[in-house]
Amino acid sequence: MNENIAIRKLGRRLRLGIAGGAGHSLIGPVHREAARLDDLFSLDAAVLSSNAERGDAEAAALGIPRSYSSTAEMFAMEKARPDGIEAVAIATPNDSHYRILCEALDAGLHVICDKPLTSTKAEADDVLVRAKAAGKVVVLTHNYSGYAMVRQARAMVAAGELGKIHQIHGVYALGQMGRLFEADEGGVPPGMRWRIDPARGGDSHALVDIGTHVHHLATFITQLQVVEVMADLGPAVQGRAAHDSANVMFRMENGAFGSFWATKAASGASKLAIEVYGDKGGVLWEQADANNLLHMRQGQPPALIGRQVAGLHPAAIRAMRGPGYHFVEGYREAFANMYVDFAEQILAMMGKGAADHLALEAPSVVDGLRSMAFIEACVASSQDRQWRQVEQVS
Amino acid sequence: MNENIAIRKLGRRLRLGIAGGAGHSLIGPVHREAARLDDLFSLDAAVLSSNAERGDAEAAALGIPRSYSSTAEMFAMEKARPDGIEAVAIATPNDSHYRILCEALDAGLHVICDKPLTSTKAEADDVLVRAKAAGKVVVLTHNYSGYAMVRQARAMVAAGELGKIHQIHGVYALGQMGRLFEADEGGVPPGMRWRIDPARGGDSHALVDIGTHVHHLATFITQLQVVEVMADLGPAVQGRAAHDSANVMFRMENGAFGSFWATKAASGASKLAIEVYGDKGGVLWEQADANNLLHMRQGQPPALIGRQVAGLHPAAIRAMRGPGYHFVEGYREAFANMYVDFAEQILAMMGKGAADHLALEAPSVVDGLRSMAFIEACVASSQDRQWRQVEQVS
Amino acid sequence: MNENIAIRKLGRRLRLGIAGGAGHSLIGPVHREAARLDDLFSLDAAVLSSNAERGDAEAAALGIPRSYSSTAEMFAMEKARPDGIEAVAIATPNDSHYRILCEALDAGLHVICDKPLTSTKAEADDVLVRAKAAGKVVVLTHNYSGYAMVRQARAMVAAGELGKIHQIHGVYALGQMGRLFEADEGGVPPGMRWRIDPARGGDSHALVDIGTHVHHLATFITQLQVVEVMADLGPAVQGRAAHDSANVMFRMENGAFGSFWATKAASGASKLAIEVYGDKGGVLWEQADANNLLHMRQGQPPALIGRQVAGLHPAAIRAMRGPGYHFVEGYREAFANMYVDFAEQILAMMGKGAADHLALEAPSVVDGLRSMAFIEACVASSQDRQWRQVEQVS
Amino acid sequence: MNENIAIRKLGRRLRLGIAGGAGHSLIGPVHREAARLDDLFSLDAAVLSSNAERGDAEAAALGIPRSYSSTAEMFAMEKARPDGIEAVAIATPNDSHYRILCEALDAGLHVICDKPLTSTKAEADDVLVRAKAAGKVVVLTHNYSGYAMVRQARAMVAAGELGKIHQIHGVYALGQMGRLFEADEGGVPPGMRWRIDPARGGDSHALVDIGTHVHHLATFITQLQVVEVMADLGPAVQGRAAHDSANVMFRMENGAFGSFWATKAASGASKLAIEVYGDKGGVLWEQADANNLLHMRQGQPPALIGRQVAGLHPAAIRAMRGPGYHFVEGYREAFANMYVDFAEQILAMMGKGAADHLALEAPSVVDGLRSMAFIEACVASSQDRQWRQVEQVS
Repeated sequence: MNENIAIRKLGRRLRLGIAGGAGHSLIGPVHREAARLDDLFSLDAAVLSSNAERGDAEAAALGIPRSYSSTAEMFAMEKARPDGIEAVAIATPNDSHYRILCEALDAGLHVICDKPLTSTKAEADDVLVRAKAAGKVVVLTHNYSGYAMVRQARAMVAAGELGKIHQIHGVYALGQMGRLFEADEGGVPPGMRWRIDPARGGDSHALVDIGTHVHHLATFITQLQVVEVMADLGPAVQGRAAHDSANVMFRMENGAFGSFWATKAASGASKLAIEVYGDKGGVLWEQADANNLLHMRQGQPPALIGRQVAGLHPAAIRAMRGPGYHFVEGYREAFANMYVDFAEQILAMMGKGAADHLALEAPSVVDGLRSMAFIEACVASSQDRQWRQVEQVS
Repeated sequence: MNENIAIRKLGRRLRLGIAGGAGHSLIGPVHREAARLDDLFSLDAAVLSSNAERGDAEAAALGIPRSYSSTAEMFAMEKARPDGIEAVAIATPNDSHYRILCEALDAGLHVICDKPLTSTKAEADDVLVRAKAAGKVVVLTHNYSGYAMVRQARAMVAAGELGKIHQIHGVYALGQMGRLFEADEGGVPPGMRWRIDPARGGDSHALVDIGTHVHHLATFITQLQVVEVMADLGPAVQGRAAHDSANVMFRMENGAFGSFWATKAASGASKLAIEVYGDKGGVLWEQADANNLLHMRQGQPPALIGRQVAGLHPAAIRAMRGPGYHFVEGYREAFANMYVDFAEQILAMMGKGAADHLALEAPSVVDGLRSMAFIEACVASSQDRQWRQVEQVS
Repeated sequence: MNENIAIRKLGRRLRLGIAGGAGHSLIGPVHREAARLDDLFSLDAAVLSSNAERGDAEAAALGIPRSYSSTAEMFAMEKARPDGIEAVAIATPNDSHYRILCEALDAGLHVICDKPLTSTKAEADDVLVRAKAAGKVVVLTHNYSGYAMVRQARAMVAAGELGKIHQIHGVYALGQMGRLFEADEGGVPPGMRWRIDPARGGDSHALVDIGTHVHHLATFITQLQVVEVMADLGPAVQGRAAHDSANVMFRMENGAFGSFWATKAASGASKLAIEVYGDKGGVLWEQADANNLLHMRQGQPPALIGRQVAGLHPAAIRAMRGPGYHFVEGYREAFANMYVDFAEQILAMMGKGAADHLALEAPSVVDGLRSMAFIEACVASSQDRQWRQVEQVS
Repeated sequence: MNENIAIRKLGRRLRLGIAGGAGHSLIGPVHREAARLDDLFSLDAAVLSSNAERGDAEAAALGIPRSYSSTAEMFAMEKARPDGIEAVAIATPNDSHYRILCEALDAGLHVICDKPLTSTKAEADDVLVRAKAAGKVVVLTHNYSGYAMVRQARAMVAAGELGKIHQIHGVYALGQMGRLFEADEGGVPPGMRWRIDPARGGDSHALVDIGTHVHHLATFITQLQVVEVMADLGPAVQGRAAHDSANVMFRMENGAFGSFWATKAASGASKLAIEVYGDKGGVLWEQADANNLLHMRQGQPPALIGRQVAGLHPAAIRAMRGPGYHFVEGYREAFANMYVDFAEQILAMMGKGAADHLALEAPSVVDGLRSMAFIEACVASSQDRQWRQVEQVS
């Protein structure tokens, strides 16, 4: 139902540029495929690599018409064209997000950016100011919020089906082949080793890289903010400097209890899950079984909500593609939903009809800022071993 | 790893036309999204509907440049253009497949066609002759064979990891909302009712519509053919003329036992599964848990093979897209794999490098012919309540 | 809730003898533990082994007061005592069931007997006549019918919650270590090899040993009888004489479709499952997840019925022991439920209050006779490759 | 394999008395059934209720020969008999455990006692001194450690199969019918309401009642002790005084990270799970799937270890009963394993052969004392919002 809404509303695809994604990039192909799934964007320009020659070659091989040597160049040159890009996807290493976000907003572009938004909360504050001033759409790819069953969970909470929320617990545990933390570091690909260097990868790798996804899911589903944290961050595998593990307890603005653990030292494991309870019931979602949502119900057997059942909330139906909603889908559909929301917001801003109000729930700069505030509070809490208030963003 | 192989090898996307897929078509959008996922094809021409006005309007809304009122017209007009389509996707109702296949092959086009290949075995025999004469690629969208874990299962059998195969059992059971068979027929959408009319939908709806998928999976995974069948077909819900249910027992060419049941009368259910045992072990795959393959092993605990584990066969790795193979995917990735194999075969035929030999395992006209032979044997078996030989195709 | 009902009603435990169960017997300890679980029986006499010396030694080691060298002796001697046994458990090899049943009924004893009831349908007919004449309780340990969730399934069907039943499918697949059929026969324990000798173990090992359990579950849950069968029996592993595998299609008295497969050649597997669909919904039960019953529902998400949920049927509640019904239980609880029903029927016959009417649903001689009729029809069907009527028992 | 070891070694069953368990007691019947399962004990004396008249009536109905009005009376009278009880099971409310433990040890009895051992750590210290002085066996029914797969997990850790342990996480969440915390307190049975009265039920209900089970499992499986805790305890449901919820982060003596959450406010849920990771792999055990242990392995697919697989550790095999180890079992088998260990320890102390060294791993007074130290540290941590050292017991 999302296919070609740009053509239907605007008469053409939206023109997209991309920064990053060459070679062995994990997320670059995902951006391109997600942008293509519903045929909403044409990928017209790119800075695929910091190595211009390599970037040009890749762009040619991918059929991208225009390749540039820097984002600054891309934004300047595209602005000068009548058919220049209107939006940009940022899929570069984390420490470049802030700079490219500033450049893109200055160039009047809409932006879809990988998380984390920035490297520090101060930078995130600045991006929020700039985004508001520019009046442009900024969507953050907290892509797990794009799963239909995660959106169903959010809608159930909003409809009061779980009652008053009082418990939130999650986990993100990795440890399979090719992951960053293996018992034998020899298994970590050389090109990824910088990530676990605290000087380059940040104060708490497990928290920044995967823990923040759990944080976002908790706030996305419950529509409540975290107000206080108690964290225990550090390396679980001895002899390592980087924080491969994060244990966090927290309280929400309504007093609800929360906790999660995130680690890249769970040898042989791969698990992302969140569960939320209120006084009427609870929900459990696991990425490994992404097409189902287990609904715990007081005094009744749990129900297994899936893509095909009657009575799904519109927010879930909107996040699914057919046939008949009855087939399994995964990461790409969820990621593509980020692009659908991005397109809908852009089209609305162009005056091409109102965006579905549900598209406005896509992760935004405010979410990115909240993540940074959360991370900084966790790091401080872990360092001084005290509960810490989380600065609230409104 | 499949992205843009047409551009890399040929310097451009392959030019695709499509027949069918307008309006409430279940499978039309799936074809378009699958063809787009890896950016291998440009969708340049279409006959979306038998209603030309409606077809044109839909084509415009989908951004398809050229719309025609019939496949005959499309094939003639496109042939006359230097930039005419090179391949066509057939996503029309079953009873038109044979005619369009003949037209397309006569027009010198490569074809990707929904199953069933034709309405009768005699038609399928003819298509095989024509396809050989035309020297064109024909891929049949038995799309469940596109799941990475189904391909892993096939590769494990081929490598002898299960030993000599002696048991094959499967099920395809549907009964959720919007499905064709509900206790209350009022729930069946009017536009779908023709399917359960035996005069229009065929002798055995459950067998033709879903049972043949299990038959194909059985032969795809084991690389063995069915030689004899004993079937019990008919309506499970009383008062209905159409066959909503099929029970089939069979024997493979090597003597292995087999059975499956397929039904659209399994109220509230949705299940596609197949399991295969040999004298060293077995595998179980269910679409509901499509990213895992349970590997039973003599004298060892079962192993849960997934997308991230080490040691997957190349046939499985080739069917997955990143990042790191560790995310869940579904029906669309599997369907897109049909288009990857289609593109690889076409490119090889164009002299642009050899196709991966694994691409040649894609369902072909021979598979479609075998399906028709299987169905005809089952229908005969059920009518005279006898075991029936299945005509072998080589 | 079943604890000590004999003491409560009768002022003492019921006096039980046992035939079989010494040494490496699989099922002997299960009988003793099941009989003890609710403290309903005292085990006062035994013929544990056909080797009298060994039987006496085992009886002493088990604290059983009186040991005999034959069942004939046991029944005669016990009859002469004022405190002699009132009931006997038969846990001997299959081919001795008929003889001991006759002896026990002649001696005026209640009997709880392992399946199969007898070796032939003719013997089973005779046992039914004798049991009616003797006026004694005979319970057959089709113990899977003792699982609380199987009883819940039966009660749901009886209450019309699934609507009119039209589909029944099951599987019993084994192949783990120590099982009778492994690729390498060297893995079969010598003491078990007679079972796979057709001359001693019967015409169709897989059907008699495990397939009949699926047959009983199908009739127990649906309360419908099988009227016609089409079977394919034989060895799946080449070079073997015994039937390690059974494929069966069947029709119920109301026209419902049915099928099951049973095999001991499913290398590395262990699975017993049954699913039943009617026009309102369906249920799926698997022994591996014995404490849950998946309830498919038209137009609603499936519900996961478990031991703790509100609204369970009395038949399920009666089959569970606390605390709060919320803990997992297994094979022993199910087997003990056979003994509870046995005791309730005996006590009622002694005039100690009416038995719970649900206790009368325990597998009886009639069930044993129906199994034999089913097996004989399957064997005949497989031999002449025709559908066969199943003789009905009323 | 555990059946009748008392008769085999001693020539008779061990003589057991019981305190508590009348009427609607949840755990009383479990004790009686567990003690009977392997026929190791005769239940000869009881103080079933604080109401003597009711206790006598229940004892008669259960066939227990001797009923007393107090434990003091029971211990005195039984000591005077040549056939007096040798051991006692304590299944009374928590606040009476300390008194009865002291009485029983003074009377020279072996004791099997429900958790928690006592109400305070000081009392637990005293029990340890008394138990050592008395030279009697004291087993604490941390019964989840009796599950075969939990014992398999412990043995795998001990054998180094998971490598150095660095992550431990657990959960115990309840909220089904009849549970203590429902949104509507009207659903809490009146006789259970005292438990959620902090004045009577203790400082932290969720931690004492269920959280300590997770603590014990963590230490049992890893054989590591908790050295530091950070807890957040309190009511999740507003308007309630009692602590229905406990969030705990901890560190083990080797630096491993740990966390668990325990709550009785998880509406509609019922979950007990623990997972442990080392640098070679991890294990996940859930009570809902108690007969399986998921084994995560670096660089290999996860294996699903079950009761039937080859290569189980002796500690797991010892905790299972047949047939062939291949059937599902549950809470009662696990609880009975506490009684097996109890009997083996008693028999060894009687000079009847050495106890299996694995029997010595049963939860003991030291475990009870460690639980009390853990609880007191958690309560202090939650009150002053600081990390707290846990006093170590050696």
